[in-house]
Amino acid sequence: MIFDRLIRKIIETQNPTCVGLDTSFSYLPEEMRAGKVTPAQKAEAVFSFNRGIIDSVFDIVPAVKVQIAYYEALGAAGLACFEKTCAYARNKGLFVIVDAKRNDIGATAAQYANAFFSEGAPFECDLLTVNGYLGTDGIAPFIDLCRENGKGIFVLVKTSNPSSGELQNLRLTDGRTVYECMGDAVEKWGEGMVGTYGYSCAGAVVGATYPEEAKVLRERLPHTFFLVPGYGAQGANAEMLKNCFKKGGLGGIVNNSRGILCAYLKRGGDYASAARAAALEMRADLKSVLGEICAN
Amino acid sequence: MIFDRLIRKIIETQNPTCVGLDTSFSYLPEEMRAGKVTPAQKAEAVFSFNRGIIDSVFDIVPAVKVQIAYYEALGAAGLACFEKTCAYARNKGLFVIVDAKRNDIGATAAQYANAFFSEGAPFECDLLTVNGYLGTDGIAPFIDLCRENGKGIFVLVKTSNPSSGELQNLRLTDGRTVYECMGDAVEKWGEGMVGTYGYSCAGAVVGATYPEEAKVLRERLPHTFFLVPGYGAQGANAEMLKNCFKKGGLGGIVNNSRGILCAYLKRGGDYASAARAAALEMRADLKSVLGEICAN
Repeated sequence: MIFDRLIRKIIETQNPTCVGLDTSFSYLPEEMRAGKVTPAQKAEAVFSFNRGIIDSVFDIVPAVKVQIAYYEALGAAGLACFEKTCAYARNKGLFVIVDAKRNDIGATAAQYANAFFSEGAPFECDLLTVNGYLGTDGIAPFIDLCRENGKGIFVLVKTSNPSSGELQNLRLTDGRTVYECMGDAVEKWGEGMVGTYGYSCAGAVVGATYPEEAKVLRERLPHTFFLVPGYGAQGANAEMLKNCFKKGGLGGIVNNSRGILCAYLKRGGDYASAARAAALEMRADLKSVLGEICAN
Repeated sequence: MIFDRLIRKIIETQNPTCVGLDTSFSYLPEEMRAGKVTPAQKAEAVFSFNRGIIDSVFDIVPAVKVQIAYYEALGAAGLACFEKTCAYARNKGLFVIVDAKRNDIGATAAQYANAFFSEGAPFECDLLTVNGYLGTDGIAPFIDLCRENGKGIFVLVKTSNPSSGELQNLRLTDGRTVYECMGDAVEKWGEGMVGTYGYSCAGAVVGATYPEEAKVLRERLPHTFFLVPGYGAQGANAEMLKNCFKKGGLGGIVNNSRGILCAYLKRGGDYASAARAAALEMRADLKSVLGEICAN
């Protein structure tokens, strides 16, 4: 079960975080950008940068979250870089979460599921973000491959962005908000797939920027592991994301992208060392709120 | 304005349809699949197949819809094929709708918008499907580039799949269904961007498989152009999709994928000729219901 394995790694590293490889070419140090003009040249530079980040943090963080949008912006060359980045991180023992928010009808969702969850597929990863607006038949193909190949999904439930409430916080006639309704669906999609630590293969995206909603969801969805965006650049601090966790500091993994990738701009020094220092600082920040992370 | 241009082409071809290039490698004739093992070999074969389809239909259909999931399943090599397919179709004068259902928070949505809507971007297309679950700040970056570069979006409103009602048909306390609420948001996102024929750059996906919901939406969203999936393999016939159109047969474009790509399996003969025959038959089928397509 994917979250059993991830949780063991989180306990081992005492670090419920992932480094977000939302690597915009513009984030690279000037000397890595110099002379790179074509998408292929830029993509190659992004891969070098990612490799430096991964080499620098793989022993202190359990996972990376690779945001595919930044790679699509460079076309097929960007996706080749994405492919290499995912493979490199997995070879280093990191869990790879692909943040792609994929969604489609059943037959097409099966293609996406194959793309990210088939063994040996070029884009194979461990966990994938998906969007549940289309309902069960758009989610089922992912769940099938989660079961077969030990993968996991994070369904968008309450997202971290300013407008997320426009739809997600509306109230239905049955008394639930849309995000609660989506959360309930996630619990249902994960039924029969619950591991040793109590979490199913179906997780949820719950933004740290909305601690009240996070509190509601943490109580409502006992078998759902949370991917928590919003820390750092988006404005959430450690205190705000406490509600995403159960006692013992388990139940979620917090992402930080720009705060790690661009740490060198604030700290000086080389980008890889600055990223490691920022990742250690983030771990300390979270642990100051969550305490020792343990299984009960 | 994108839909002014598309509508002119629809009137010219008397054909409110698009050919769906959801090209699974398994759809190719046996002789095109033979000996193709690696993703790169399969992707090359898929491109040859797509080129044959495009050459065969470009003078009788106004647009193609390229479903990116089928290309992602082949990794970076598949995306190179996607890139070439989109470019080839645009060079043939076809409008290219990319069906990617992308969605993310503002900063990341801007990356997707750049990927598909920037002039000269590797994946540049004319229209893109997007998912509005995250609200306005996830849609705004696409609208910005629609305005700047003459592009358009189709937001998922009422999808064609069996489970679409699980969330989309739920009723909110203000009396609207979720799909009506999403439809209203689309009208709002397109404000100030309405062209000669009355449609804004923000369109909607409305499945032909739900004619009652389509009727409600067609009346409710006067400035919204519809992308209509569900015809053919998914079970909708011409009579069912009538509700997606206004008088004069305008207001929507109907997709058919497998019914065109795999027509050779039913009709015999070479796949490209069979695709053309199927596309002509579909046009006749739609016109039997919609009549002459004209601007008023």
